[in-house]
Amino acid sequence: MTFNDTFLRSIRKESVDHIPVWYMRQAGRYQPSYRKIKEKFSLEQITEQPELCAEVTIAPIEQLGVDAAILYSDIMTPIKPMGIDVEIKAGIGPVISNPVRTLADVNAMRVPNAKEDLPFVIETIEILVRELKVPLITFAGAPFTLASYIIEGGPSRNYYKTKQMMYSAPDVWNALMDKLSDMILSYMKAHIEAGAQAIQIFDSWVGSLSQSDYRTYVLPTMKKIFTGLQELNVPKIYFGVGTGELMRIWSELPVDVIGVDWRVPLDQARERVGSKFSLQGNLDPAYLLAPEDVRFAEAARILDMGMAQPGFVFNLGHGIFPEADVDVLKRLTDFVHEYSARRLSR
Amino acid sequence: MTFNDTFLRSIRKESVDHIPVWYMRQAGRYQPSYRKIKEKFSLEQITEQPELCAEVTIAPIEQLGVDAAILYSDIMTPIKPMGIDVEIKAGIGPVISNPVRTLADVNAMRVPNAKEDLPFVIETIEILVRELKVPLITFAGAPFTLASYIIEGGPSRNYYKTKQMMYSAPDVWNALMDKLSDMILSYMKAHIEAGAQAIQIFDSWVGSLSQSDYRTYVLPTMKKIFTGLQELNVPKIYFGVGTGELMRIWSELPVDVIGVDWRVPLDQARERVGSKFSLQGNLDPAYLLAPEDVRFAEAARILDMGMAQPGFVFNLGHGIFPEADVDVLKRLTDFVHEYSARRLSR
Repeated sequence: MTFNDTFLRSIRKESVDHIPVWYMRQAGRYQPSYRKIKEKFSLEQITEQPELCAEVTIAPIEQLGVDAAILYSDIMTPIKPMGIDVEIKAGIGPVISNPVRTLADVNAMRVPNAKEDLPFVIETIEILVRELKVPLITFAGAPFTLASYIIEGGPSRNYYKTKQMMYSAPDVWNALMDKLSDMILSYMKAHIEAGAQAIQIFDSWVGSLSQSDYRTYVLPTMKKIFTGLQELNVPKIYFGVGTGELMRIWSELPVDVIGVDWRVPLDQARERVGSKFSLQGNLDPAYLLAPEDVRFAEAARILDMGMAQPGFVFNLGHGIFPEADVDVLKRLTDFVHEYSARRLSR
Repeated sequence: MTFNDTFLRSIRKESVDHIPVWYMRQAGRYQPSYRKIKEKFSLEQITEQPELCAEVTIAPIEQLGVDAAILYSDIMTPIKPMGIDVEIKAGIGPVISNPVRTLADVNAMRVPNAKEDLPFVIETIEILVRELKVPLITFAGAPFTLASYIIEGGPSRNYYKTKQMMYSAPDVWNALMDKLSDMILSYMKAHIEAGAQAIQIFDSWVGSLSQSDYRTYVLPTMKKIFTGLQELNVPKIYFGVGTGELMRIWSELPVDVIGVDWRVPLDQARERVGSKFSLQGNLDPAYLLAPEDVRFAEAARILDMGMAQPGFVFNLGHGIFPEADVDVLKRLTDFVHEYSARRLSR
């Protein structure tokens, strides 16, 4: 089997014979194989065993036939060696016993060295790069999203403590943004050196900010990160949930792909960011529960918009959820491949 | 003291000497006076005692100096007499022991008669209309938002069961939309007959839908409701959280005021809906925790945009939260009044 580089080619707007597909959280609880592994090991325990972690990362490629792998990991993985006491609690998410509130707290955080502090992550990437026949995406959480957990102490609905720090203690906020962006730059560089072929930066919760606050408190950090990542010469994807209102601002960033959730139709996303960027998205994951004809009609509608210009990757607008079905995702992947291949061969 | 009709005048784009202010959830746990009442009575028990409920509704007018009152109630209040077993649980929200899933479940729901089934609500409105020196806003939840609780059985993050019904059982979905819109029309009519002077329809969670799904599954119902409410001849406000992407579609609805959350700058909201509509919003509630100079600068920025055209009501982009401070809100209200009065007198 030859290497399938359709994902990278489509991002670069080169000719492809089908639209590439991958899914956020494609290694996850919806898979019986994954649930079986999770009976024995926690997320942390899986990531600390490179062979097992590689197996978990590879499983969806085999089960679904997707065109890219994404490293099995968590956005909080590199946060623990920064001195933050984080635990991923089932059904809740990351919970932090020592939330960061003061400048002294931020100063006490150290920037980890991936090779020394997280050698198992690098080793997993090396195994994957040897074994995979599709590109490997690696990822990091963006500073706002990471900060929201680190400041709130866990998942939040309104991010009031996070915003309170932004407004009331900009020196602490800026120090935290700097520390997190140093971590992200060093962590992503180590992944790319180990062989990962693309980066996705998850800014899942930044859609809670107004445009004006994003511009003041977050944009400078994102510019620094994406500019710093440019020398790595791999495609960079930036994604958030409910971030349509920020998309025009995102077009100022040196990223290659804008991740779009289902709230923004792809033609409107293109209007906002311009034709320079490739797009990735944007089926509402809820369609995984719809009858197949309804789901395929929606996928076709999205493909028609996405394929109107070169530079498109099919994905969901957010991660796969536990109630989803492997066979549904396999058949959806096949549908996207076949429908787009038919259109492209015309 | 004469009647202060600035709120109604501003919505009608008549000349005003200051920009009117009110706050979503202005009667709430941030008030020590309210917390004291809540030690003795639940939300339901307060709404069932007209004198007490009127007192709770009036308190923020006296404490903050706002330009409108909003009936103390809950969007689930008229749902209980429909045969839905709903309980408002502290710290969680509405919890429903018999969620609606089938056509038989929907058919078993009855449209309540407000005067007979909720006489205490009508009586509260009558007291308020006699006592208040500002307009009384009444409200209802919109069908999608109500349906999300009724189908999921409680608050939800992703609304998968709700969307699953939309996609898989459109007959059940449409029957539920019809039943809820009949309730809303009859309930709002009874409130207006009792003397309420404006209506706000809360579609808090409809921002979870794509534009295409909103158009297919929700818009026809919203057209029916707002067209039906037109004969009542009071201003109609439509509000949701994270609904910026739906705003162009909302401009097809016969409403008077579009409620804007903080994610959409008011100048962009005007671009989307056109100058026919008045706007209401849109300070991020998180600014209630900011230093006063930062909060006032943001309020001024919003006022400058909001006052660029006639037809503006100052509000938060979402409800006041329990950690907020009465004095902060009082001083914010004064600031909005004084800043806008200065600008208007120029």
